[in-house]
Amino acid sequence: MTQPTIGFIGTGVMGKSMAERLLDSGYALNVYTRTFQKAEGLIERGAVWKNSVQKLAEDSQVIITMVGYPDDVEEVYFGEDGLLQNSKEGSYLVDMTTSSPELAVQIETEARKRGIATLDAPVSGGDIGAKKGNLSIMVGAEEEAFEKIRPIFYVMGSNTVYQGTAGSGQYTKMCNQIAIASNMMGVSEALAYAEAAGLDPDTVLESISGGAAGSWSLNNLTPRVIAGDYSPGFYVKHFIKDMKIAIDSAEKMNLDLPGLQLAKQLYDKIAAEGEEDSGTQALYKYYTG
Amino acid sequence: MTQPTIGFIGTGVMGKSMAERLLDSGYALNVYTRTFQKAEGLIERGAVWKNSVQKLAEDSQVIITMVGYPDDVEEVYFGEDGLLQNSKEGSYLVDMTTSSPELAVQIETEARKRGIATLDAPVSGGDIGAKKGNLSIMVGAEEEAFEKIRPIFYVMGSNTVYQGTAGSGQYTKMCNQIAIASNMMGVSEALAYAEAAGLDPDTVLESISGGAAGSWSLNNLTPRVIAGDYSPGFYVKHFIKDMKIAIDSAEKMNLDLPGLQLAKQLYDKIAAEGEEDSGTQALYKYYTG
Repeated sequence: MTQPTIGFIGTGVMGKSMAERLLDSGYALNVYTRTFQKAEGLIERGAVWKNSVQKLAEDSQVIITMVGYPDDVEEVYFGEDGLLQNSKEGSYLVDMTTSSPELAVQIETEARKRGIATLDAPVSGGDIGAKKGNLSIMVGAEEEAFEKIRPIFYVMGSNTVYQGTAGSGQYTKMCNQIAIASNMMGVSEALAYAEAAGLDPDTVLESISGGAAGSWSLNNLTPRVIAGDYSPGFYVKHFIKDMKIAIDSAEKMNLDLPGLQLAKQLYDKIAAEGEEDSGTQALYKYYTG
Repeated sequence: MTQPTIGFIGTGVMGKSMAERLLDSGYALNVYTRTFQKAEGLIERGAVWKNSVQKLAEDSQVIITMVGYPDDVEEVYFGEDGLLQNSKEGSYLVDMTTSSPELAVQIETEARKRGIATLDAPVSGGDIGAKKGNLSIMVGAEEEAFEKIRPIFYVMGSNTVYQGTAGSGQYTKMCNQIAIASNMMGVSEALAYAEAAGLDPDTVLESISGGAAGSWSLNNLTPRVIAGDYSPGFYVKHFIKDMKIAIDSAEKMNLDLPGLQLAKQLYDKIAAEGEEDSGTQALYKYYTG
């Protein structure tokens, strides 16, 4: 397709940076958000404000959603004024929210009946990756739809991988979160043990970060904890949301994931103690009170 | 000190490679093991066989122990015919076994009374690191003793770090094992979930291994599991030994490490089902039966 007009729904920290990159690459962009103020910066840069999901759907050929929770996705897609009801035949709906794989499959089933293509394409790489356009984008869709939307993904990500049919992008993102969840316990416990033993945690990292214990979390988050920096790279509350999706999804497949379940319990506990808006490295506080 | 004569006790897979490097670097080496055959290769290369710990202790200035379990360490150091009883005043005893930090402190306390210096210096990097001389060596000792033995460590390791007084090397190694333990759950669970969801695990790795989920274990062990290769880089039975040391040690510090405890339970289960001599990646079998 020639350069399509893109509709963008959801311009939080991540969505805003992704939409900016699309604008900067020359795409015509329609934008809708629940909170108008969050779209103002984009409008100044040339995006066109649409007053409702319905209006945005009517005027866009590709629609990207980057909202908060699976409930928000459900509302935006299945609501009376939602995307499925109001998108044109032949349009492409791309959900980049981290959301439920099963919901992605439901959306695709409904959309197909209406001649609409859908893609689930959650990302990792955080706000910095969104700004720099080097997100990892994990895509579930019909291959043909993926080929059509691929140039748009390339504007936002540096590692776009086709993972399979509808839901596969979300399943892959869940693999990512599942791997992180237990590792965050390992990293936090190693650090708590080092402190309890009276070691210098920086010196411990010199010994262990380059070997079999090494991980992105150990090497990037431990130094923040050592510095007392609990500011969010990734919010505790969002991580809990993702772990809940993964646990529900695993249960539907009769798969027991005790490490993930334990990690979620520990995160629930620190969230209840006021760490919801801290970064995920705040798990360390579970161990040290 | 001028090039000292080194006594080496324990020539299993790791010990043998470490001793070979010392020989190849020109050190005079005495050797003793419980099983003579395990020393034959070293004797052919010029090591001198000693018939007992006592004999070895009498004829060596620096003695390196690389045995199996804390019980073995206890026997070699505290036994009637052991190192503390028989080593010369002014000698250096270096335990490179992964063993109990508290035991390392006990050994140091006893040795000090006899004018003997001790170092706890466990390693990571496996048999390949031992062969290539690029182990990570984590040292607990008086700094003066560390300075004396440092040239010997440099023959065996490429990352030798002084961690503090007696026990600090073992504490650091425990940090390493604690970080690995929970991460092995995360890695195994991510892979089990990917398989259950019908994803191609290699393609999932393309999406997630370079980001926040990335880790040495994810990037190195998952491909082995995908290939059905459960051969030991590091044995399940040895990892269980290490986790037990870490749990006991944490308990002594009143530190609760639920991730580590859970990981040990899962490993105990697969060990009971016949995976003791598999590599640690066999944890995957817990999830897939």
